[in-house]
Amino acid sequence: MSTSINRPLVGTVIGDACGIGPEVVAKAWCSGGVHECSRPVLIGSRFAMEEAVRSAGLSAEVRTIGSIAELSDSPRVIEILDSGSLDARDITAGRDNEACGRASGVWLDEADRLAREGVLAATVMGPISTGAMKMAGVLDKVVKVTPGESYLFLVSGPLRVSHVTDHMSLRQVCDLLTEKLVAQSLVTLDERLRAWGMVAPRIGVAGLNPHAVGEEEERAITPGVRRAIAMGVRAEGPVSPDAIFRQCIEGRYDAILAMYHDQGHIAIKTWGFSGNAAVIIGPPYVHLSVAHGTAYDIVGKGIADHRMMLNAMRTAGSLAAGTGFPKEL
Amino acid sequence: MSTSINRPLVGTVIGDACGIGPEVVAKAWCSGGVHECSRPVLIGSRFAMEEAVRSAGLSAEVRTIGSIAELSDSPRVIEILDSGSLDARDITAGRDNEACGRASGVWLDEADRLAREGVLAATVMGPISTGAMKMAGVLDKVVKVTPGESYLFLVSGPLRVSHVTDHMSLRQVCDLLTEKLVAQSLVTLDERLRAWGMVAPRIGVAGLNPHAVGEEEERAITPGVRRAIAMGVRAEGPVSPDAIFRQCIEGRYDAILAMYHDQGHIAIKTWGFSGNAAVIIGPPYVHLSVAHGTAYDIVGKGIADHRMMLNAMRTAGSLAAGTGFPKEL
Repeated sequence: MSTSINRPLVGTVIGDACGIGPEVVAKAWCSGGVHECSRPVLIGSRFAMEEAVRSAGLSAEVRTIGSIAELSDSPRVIEILDSGSLDARDITAGRDNEACGRASGVWLDEADRLAREGVLAATVMGPISTGAMKMAGVLDKVVKVTPGESYLFLVSGPLRVSHVTDHMSLRQVCDLLTEKLVAQSLVTLDERLRAWGMVAPRIGVAGLNPHAVGEEEERAITPGVRRAIAMGVRAEGPVSPDAIFRQCIEGRYDAILAMYHDQGHIAIKTWGFSGNAAVIIGPPYVHLSVAHGTAYDIVGKGIADHRMMLNAMRTAGSLAAGTGFPKEL
Repeated sequence: MSTSINRPLVGTVIGDACGIGPEVVAKAWCSGGVHECSRPVLIGSRFAMEEAVRSAGLSAEVRTIGSIAELSDSPRVIEILDSGSLDARDITAGRDNEACGRASGVWLDEADRLAREGVLAATVMGPISTGAMKMAGVLDKVVKVTPGESYLFLVSGPLRVSHVTDHMSLRQVCDLLTEKLVAQSLVTLDERLRAWGMVAPRIGVAGLNPHAVGEEEERAITPGVRRAIAMGVRAEGPVSPDAIFRQCIEGRYDAILAMYHDQGHIAIKTWGFSGNAAVIIGPPYVHLSVAHGTAYDIVGKGIADHRMMLNAMRTAGSLAAGTGFPKEL
């Protein structure tokens, strides 16, 4: 690749070495689509990547680099920062183990450090195993989502949804919603959409209850939207939750603010799934995670679908460059 | 049409005479698709139907009949039971008025009476105006949905969703769910699906909270599903609400039991909308309502899309005949 203008450095953690992470990362890398919008580098196990290249029938070379300065920036050379945190003998394809869980934690830490130091503009988390990371006691290395601080933002083509709350019972969601939380979520979302390259983004705000009529709408959502509008956010709502996602698909909004996990997730997962990406709004850099798991049942068969990983890596580059969301795959 | 075997009598209330109801009913009738699976008859205003035939550029004749015995059963003759409840001069196209609201109430009553007497096997409610019916104080004529007694069942191709609760705040839903309510909803749904012609239907049960993990799952949904299974229902769940609707589309389930209004409605309306139909499980006969409103802004222009009405009328006939859901349009 001849130029690095608008091609930010994106670090991808390969995910659990026992899952399909290395395979989908290798396929995405070799597709060339990643290099169009970023200069990629991997963080993980060189051995796991070599195995993946072999089982996927790819012809790429895998090379360990000592620092970013050594990047050759080619789709035919898979370059990886391998700190030696995982012994090749500890890889148990298709099964959780503690050593691989611990390695995932180390790699996530390395990626976070490089991004906070400004070396990487964005990071992508491949499919980790929460089971293995729990065994190793390092699940806290995965970026958490905390209402008012960080938000899960899902993308599936034109349907883009940020969530005020994440893993939390519906009853807790009812209790937690306040004018301040809604306003804050909107201001943060607006600020990020602009940083990613959207000009004056239109944000639709979902209600909580059927037809957006209820106590929480009156007490929290309506005044929260009003406050955000007063601060310059182009927000609209609360809108009936069963209508707003279709309106986003049809282009009325650039993004939706959903009040709870399933509100947005039902829309995204029911509509379509193949090109999804998940952005975590919170860290001081662009951070994505791939929207699927380790798929232990198909490890090593060379049949894993790499489109979500490719989309995550491409999206990371585009958002970090401030050029908006890449075209759908 | 030469035979009435498996073509049940279906009565369709034309909806508010000021809306697009008469137009979409006329177009659906003349398409021939309705007569394939039912012997249709309308209930409403002959004048409104004549106007609709004219503005839609159809060549059908509109004829008032005194009783079902007079039905000629032809797509070229629109036959209507018109009790004279609406004066033609009271029709204000594109605007609510009390007289039309009152007439909608009378027509719904007539349809219900004929179905309870066994004359009609099924009824379809065209797009009424809740505003006009409120003016006339007859909104209670619309079949209500009451948890434990009646359920809204939405259909959009292979995605079929029954709702335990309907218009109710999320907080109320959390309070209302019990083992008994879940079991009862499942037994009723299973009984209806079998009556409609499905053999051993597989029902997926959505959880309430993210990933179907929470207090309501433990206290109400899991034991409710278990109780229904013990009574012979082929139920499975609680399943993660964000995964179950896509699984239904892909054929793993024949229908889903959703816990609350938006859970099912977000899935149905985000996935696709053109062929939807709404069945009310509750009355002792098959009862559908069309899944759109009066669309006052396009009345009389001849451009209203009749596919949802056609689908509702066809589905009513098929379900009443016990031959399952008709193929998608």
